[in-house]
Amino acid sequence: MTANTPLTTPVSLLGLGAMGTALARAWLAAGHPLTVWNRTPARAEALVAEGAKAADGAAGAVAASDLVVVCLLDDDSVGTALDGVDLAGKDLVNLTTTTPEQARARAAWAEERGARYLDGGIMAVPPMVGVPEAGGFVFYSGSPEVFEARREVLAVPVGTRYVGEDPGFAALHDIALLSAMYGMFAGVAHAFALIRREDIDPVAFAPLLGEWIPAMAGPAVRQTAERLKSGDLTTGVVSNLAMQVAGTPTFLAAAEGQGVSTELLRPYFDLMRRRLDIGSGEEDLTGVVDLLLR
Amino acid sequence: MTANTPLTTPVSLLGLGAMGTALARAWLAAGHPLTVWNRTPARAEALVAEGAKAADGAAGAVAASDLVVVCLLDDDSVGTALDGVDLAGKDLVNLTTTTPEQARARAAWAEERGARYLDGGIMAVPPMVGVPEAGGFVFYSGSPEVFEARREVLAVPVGTRYVGEDPGFAALHDIALLSAMYGMFAGVAHAFALIRREDIDPVAFAPLLGEWIPAMAGPAVRQTAERLKSGDLTTGVVSNLAMQVAGTPTFLAAAEGQGVSTELLRPYFDLMRRRLDIGSGEEDLTGVVDLLLR
Repeated sequence: MTANTPLTTPVSLLGLGAMGTALARAWLAAGHPLTVWNRTPARAEALVAEGAKAADGAAGAVAASDLVVVCLLDDDSVGTALDGVDLAGKDLVNLTTTTPEQARARAAWAEERGARYLDGGIMAVPPMVGVPEAGGFVFYSGSPEVFEARREVLAVPVGTRYVGEDPGFAALHDIALLSAMYGMFAGVAHAFALIRREDIDPVAFAPLLGEWIPAMAGPAVRQTAERLKSGDLTTGVVSNLAMQVAGTPTFLAAAEGQGVSTELLRPYFDLMRRRLDIGSGEEDLTGVVDLLLR
Repeated sequence: MTANTPLTTPVSLLGLGAMGTALARAWLAAGHPLTVWNRTPARAEALVAEGAKAADGAAGAVAASDLVVVCLLDDDSVGTALDGVDLAGKDLVNLTTTTPEQARARAAWAEERGARYLDGGIMAVPPMVGVPEAGGFVFYSGSPEVFEARREVLAVPVGTRYVGEDPGFAALHDIALLSAMYGMFAGVAHAFALIRREDIDPVAFAPLLGEWIPAMAGPAVRQTAERLKSGDLTTGVVSNLAMQVAGTPTFLAAAEGQGVSTELLRPYFDLMRRRLDIGSGEEDLTGVVDLLLR
């Protein structure tokens, strides 16, 4: 706590979905004066009983605090809620899930209106908010001044990670990690489908799979990053592209043999094959990344 | 070491690719009498210098030990190498990568010839063999008698996990884990593609991704397993199917905005949508698994 950080910071919060409500409770629990607004006012009632002030409209909520946090359904909701609202002199922190392009446009829009803008991408679900040991965090990007001035109060509900001045970077980091997660989920779904009709207890199988993926993820991610940076796709490769492409028919045949669709496996295998056609069999799998770029 | 386990066990090993050679070195280092055979004999020479005997043919190698380990290119190579070879009384341990169906057929084939059969699926790359701290292991399935009698010598190069009497289960576990890994790899490739053209250092980005996937994998796998077992897809769901399907356009739009193909994301998102159409929005994502079954 530095001299110019007040012990409590007034916060205005727009948007009381599950995430907004969880954020609100964390700030209230820490004693920060909180003004809330939600399009449908009923969601504010429980928070008022817990100490929040409910603003009549978005403009009133924005007027109540210099720090304005927005956590709405989507970028359109942000534009609608803040249409015509005086944002001059405000620090606008937008935790609404958006694309990087939307975040960049919203930053420019806020700056035109005299606000400093910080964008956030929340890597947590509501039950993780206010529970530091749950490990959730928010990617922040945009105004470094806002981040520095506000990081302590922003860190109350969930940890902070600043990823750059480009206001699109928080959303980009958020979407990149979640997209990777869906890829992992797809692999997990395929794995469970393979054993689904066999006399194999999925709960006994789960720890094998649940240990294997983390064991593979860390080294794969690190090596991919290093090879993308260096451009060297071949030095020290253990399981090379040629060997891995040669193995893919076994995975597809095994799926067919188990009556499992190959729709989740084939797209990546097709990219491995395309890379082998234009690259070297001595590479690892990193070359697939640039095949995705258009 | 029990009374009926000799301190050293003669092993015959057919197949000296990178994996076979690594296995051979581990058994030699542990002092087990080793007879090796490879279709192209040159690969045996270095091992002979290290103490192995080289057999002239597969039949000679099989005759040299009661425990015969096969690690060849594919199931066809096993059939070709062992065609007409006397297997009566042998313990045949097949570490060749195959489909579950091939393993089952090979088990029946071996038993017809008077051998006891154990199938193995190796969850390690050659540099992990003989390095217990590397965490590699082999799934074994098939004859429980062979596994019990041979587990100590089999555990010398790499740890053992017995997964059932069905000789196809080792291959099925192997393929399920590796298939899930490729799904994860696909997600990782998409994530790196998203940041590829931005001023973001992939090596700085890697730890974020490398921590996120493991943090999500364990709980997701465990919950999927429990829901598949119980059939309850809705109790205690935090991020439900309806919310997640509603979020997918942002992921697709972000990819388009970054100039990244959505080919690795769409198939799983399509299945989420299909499940929402026939299931409940209150479910988690487990319902996708059964959509893969035909």
